[in-house]
Amino acid sequence: MVSGIRILIIGGLATGPKAAARARRLNPDAEITIIEQGDFVSYSSCGIPYYIGGQIPNFEDLVNTPVGITRNPAYFDAVKGIKVLLNTKAVKIDREQKKVYTVRVDSGEETALPYDKLVIATGSRPRRLPFEGMKLKNVSTVWTLDDARKIREQLINGNVKKVVIIGAGLIGLETAEAIRQARNIPNKPPEVTVLEALPHIAPAILDPEISDLVRKRLKEHHISIHTNTIVRELEGDENGKVRQVITDQGNYPADLVLVTVGATPNVALAEDAGLKIGITGAIAVNEYLQTSDPDIYAGGDCVENINLITGKPAYYQNGAVANRHGRVIGTNLAGGKDIFPGVLGTTVFKIFDHTVGRTGLTERQAREEGFEVITSIVGGSDHAHFYPDARPLVIKLIADRATRRLLGAQLVGTGNVDKRLDTIAVALSTAATVDQIANFDLAYAPPYNAAMDVLHHAANTLRNKLDGWARSIGPQEASSMLQKQDDIILVDVRTSREFEKNPPPFNNVAFIPLGKLRAMSDQLPKDKELLIYCQVSQRAWEAQRILQEKGFEKVRFIEGGLLAWPY
Amino acid sequence: MVSGIRILIIGGLATGPKAAARARRLNPDAEITIIEQGDFVSYSSCGIPYYIGGQIPNFEDLVNTPVGITRNPAYFDAVKGIKVLLNTKAVKIDREQKKVYTVRVDSGEETALPYDKLVIATGSRPRRLPFEGMKLKNVSTVWTLDDARKIREQLINGNVKKVVIIGAGLIGLETAEAIRQARNIPNKPPEVTVLEALPHIAPAILDPEISDLVRKRLKEHHISIHTNTIVRELEGDENGKVRQVITDQGNYPADLVLVTVGATPNVALAEDAGLKIGITGAIAVNEYLQTSDPDIYAGGDCVENINLITGKPAYYQNGAVANRHGRVIGTNLAGGKDIFPGVLGTTVFKIFDHTVGRTGLTERQAREEGFEVITSIVGGSDHAHFYPDARPLVIKLIADRATRRLLGAQLVGTGNVDKRLDTIAVALSTAATVDQIANFDLAYAPPYNAAMDVLHHAANTLRNKLDGWARSIGPQEASSMLQKQDDIILVDVRTSREFEKNPPPFNNVAFIPLGKLRAMSDQLPKDKELLIYCQVSQRAWEAQRILQEKGFEKVRFIEGGLLAWPY
Repeated sequence: MVSGIRILIIGGLATGPKAAARARRLNPDAEITIIEQGDFVSYSSCGIPYYIGGQIPNFEDLVNTPVGITRNPAYFDAVKGIKVLLNTKAVKIDREQKKVYTVRVDSGEETALPYDKLVIATGSRPRRLPFEGMKLKNVSTVWTLDDARKIREQLINGNVKKVVIIGAGLIGLETAEAIRQARNIPNKPPEVTVLEALPHIAPAILDPEISDLVRKRLKEHHISIHTNTIVRELEGDENGKVRQVITDQGNYPADLVLVTVGATPNVALAEDAGLKIGITGAIAVNEYLQTSDPDIYAGGDCVENINLITGKPAYYQNGAVANRHGRVIGTNLAGGKDIFPGVLGTTVFKIFDHTVGRTGLTERQAREEGFEVITSIVGGSDHAHFYPDARPLVIKLIADRATRRLLGAQLVGTGNVDKRLDTIAVALSTAATVDQIANFDLAYAPPYNAAMDVLHHAANTLRNKLDGWARSIGPQEASSMLQKQDDIILVDVRTSREFEKNPPPFNNVAFIPLGKLRAMSDQLPKDKELLIYCQVSQRAWEAQRILQEKGFEKVRFIEGGLLAWPY
Repeated sequence: MVSGIRILIIGGLATGPKAAARARRLNPDAEITIIEQGDFVSYSSCGIPYYIGGQIPNFEDLVNTPVGITRNPAYFDAVKGIKVLLNTKAVKIDREQKKVYTVRVDSGEETALPYDKLVIATGSRPRRLPFEGMKLKNVSTVWTLDDARKIREQLINGNVKKVVIIGAGLIGLETAEAIRQARNIPNKPPEVTVLEALPHIAPAILDPEISDLVRKRLKEHHISIHTNTIVRELEGDENGKVRQVITDQGNYPADLVLVTVGATPNVALAEDAGLKIGITGAIAVNEYLQTSDPDIYAGGDCVENINLITGKPAYYQNGAVANRHGRVIGTNLAGGKDIFPGVLGTTVFKIFDHTVGRTGLTERQAREEGFEVITSIVGGSDHAHFYPDARPLVIKLIADRATRRLLGAQLVGTGNVDKRLDTIAVALSTAATVDQIANFDLAYAPPYNAAMDVLHHAANTLRNKLDGWARSIGPQEASSMLQKQDDIILVDVRTSREFEKNPPPFNNVAFIPLGKLRAMSDQLPKDKELLIYCQVSQRAWEAQRILQEKGFEKVRFIEGGLLAWPY
């Protein structure tokens, strides 16, 4: 019955089905089988927080195609000519015999499936808390469709008043937001508390000052965040239902606890088969996504990638990368020679009306890699100020002083943040310098941006720093300086109207609107440290140059202005 | 009194003030003067259509800074330390004496201003119709603030029922849209008719099939478009007010006629001074934006740029480029060595809820340049289909078959089109291949895109064509083929629900949902030409592979599906 090459794929979420579908399109003769230990194949796990919150109203939306066809084994058979075995767990790979031993999760039935080419797409699994409390009722990870369904049911039942989320990473924050604005639940959304062991939220994604800006927005939306807080224990009631979370900083009552403390790659099957595991702990693959056995490919959350900035292996979990892996593997299964170049760790998430993103290295990572780091923070509008509904955003750029190459970026704002994020991701992919970025021919019309896009401003600010023209200080450094030194004078160069509407969060403020600074600069002392600020730091930079022109030497502006001030 | 270098700048719109401000920030000693023949300095002419339509409510918004400060000579003096002379026209440059002869537009007073470094930023002027009718009342270009004010007043007066716009370029289309949804006018918005001499709208920006898609949207919004229509005459009434537009295709009654037939660079001053004019008819400059006289810089709409794809001179008008020119010139005026690399002709405009954009070469331009062109048209959603409010968009990519390098792109849709446009612009700036684009690490989360961004799909479709896997046909070619041949069978592989909701615009349709195609393919004839389509062409591509697998040879899919079908 076998009319061609036998392709066996372990894992039915993202990489697996994509590789299978691609291989089928290129090779009509292959016999392709996907084995998946769960009940579903090819679903959208990234939508889980939004199903929990009710923003995605139907469970089926997560498993259906865009036109409402359910992706089940019958669909894969009819449309793709691919066999899918659900509830089937791979337990052992025999590389010599080229067989995978499987067991049915329901019946326990064992089978050995032969292969010519094998794909390992076993994904990752959520980390769990290192103590017993996870077995209490109303304690869950946020990982599987089953998790999603149960959590959603609890919200709909209306008995959840207080949710504690342990871990302020991507999934924790997305879920916090989704629950706080939950739809179609009987009562108002529950209180949400997020606990994080590290000093800042989203610590793997964001540098402290950007992280703190996001935290400020979460607080405005009544999500309670506690950092530097180590969970010791989950305490249950007499019915075995969680009652509170015990931490080193106090106790947090809860009737639903969600554990989102990261994930770890599923490598046991590969490791047992003697395949090479990389330094990150995930499966090592070459640029063709082959493991150390050339007949075995691997992709998705179980493998490590090359970071395009450092050229070194890195471990990220990402559904989009998993899909792109799938296509590369599918092509290569069909005899092609497609290459997966690597990743930037590009990440985006939604926090109410704000979008938050990162691509490339954080400042911390860049320093750890030994780059001579220079950064800048800039605020601006996403489109022309005179066209309705211009919305603000903040960009932090991280660059290498020696080569002027951009290394990474972080963005936050209500404006079209994801546009700039993708634009920067492409710039990073091609090793662009800040000088190149400053002259990218981006699309301009008033409904879409300003004549100088905020990204141009961000790149130019960094160039002004690199070239020694701009003297500035980041919000974090400014804040700690203000705490240590009490003789610093802050110079506010906004208009009176802005000043009255949005009073400064500082003491020791000299208020001189930019238009009066040339005339009134003699009112400022030349021997004191001056920190200038405005709303987004464009005017403060101009003011710095004016004051230097007037002979002031101890003068700097605060990067990103009040828009980027998180304190 | 002269304390430093004398910098004189002719032109006060975009390049001029930007160059002046930049030079001032870097050089506190320079004496900087801007001369401007009009009444205003540093205003936002790109906002004019939206002021006419009332989307920008106040005239002042076009001349004010983001915080409401009017950019007038007093502002430039106080904030920038820059002298601005309004109503002052430069009439002659004496390069030997290093003087510019000027005349006051109001008083006729003549002065000669000395310079060490000169900047020519004289911009462009609108083309006019080659006959007398332009002097009739209620006939206007859409160019100056004065034009804007008068047109807006006429709309507010309520006597305008029928507007005819001559020329379907960028400004014509933006103005048509702004007027059709005019705000704060006494009556309902006037009827708008757009006349275009060429066969397609936006002919300089879009290829025919994308242009026709935009035209379809304009029609849905009740803008009447007539292409291949040559205007012969404007006819006035007894009061000298325009009454109708006489064309070779009939007459169009009008009580307001707007002439938007392109623009031409203002080079007379430079030409008279013996500066080199480029082959495009605009002022030639080097990468530092110096003219053939190293003490004279030029930038903005009066100069030609290098097209980054062809490496050849090209002429574009663009306010964003003008601003970037200004910064480069400002740096160089202050002794720097900044470089302007060139442009891609990136353009974006809004048509009601649609965004339309182009970057790089059109297919026509690419063919004219001798590239071995390959294109693809793809439709998709701007974000995950299961997250609320996913909106469609269409991408056309143009690439070079030999090098697989992307040459250009055109986009249209209600989704986040400008994001993909800027992303592609950066890819073009760095000479990316479609293979690189297919693996760009773009930001993924359900509110922002699908796991494979529509841009990934677009690049992959082109790769599938380049590699011989995909056999497809563009909408334009398909349409003309269907007109010529009556034995073609169209295969609709959508669901029954889609088919009923949105019946096909074709005859000879065989309806076989994708899920049944493997089983039912024997119902299709193998000797006939088959054209497969779906909504966005993802399923049609899969269907093409299935039918090929089943032994069909004369089978192709229609690129972009019904979403991109303009006919």
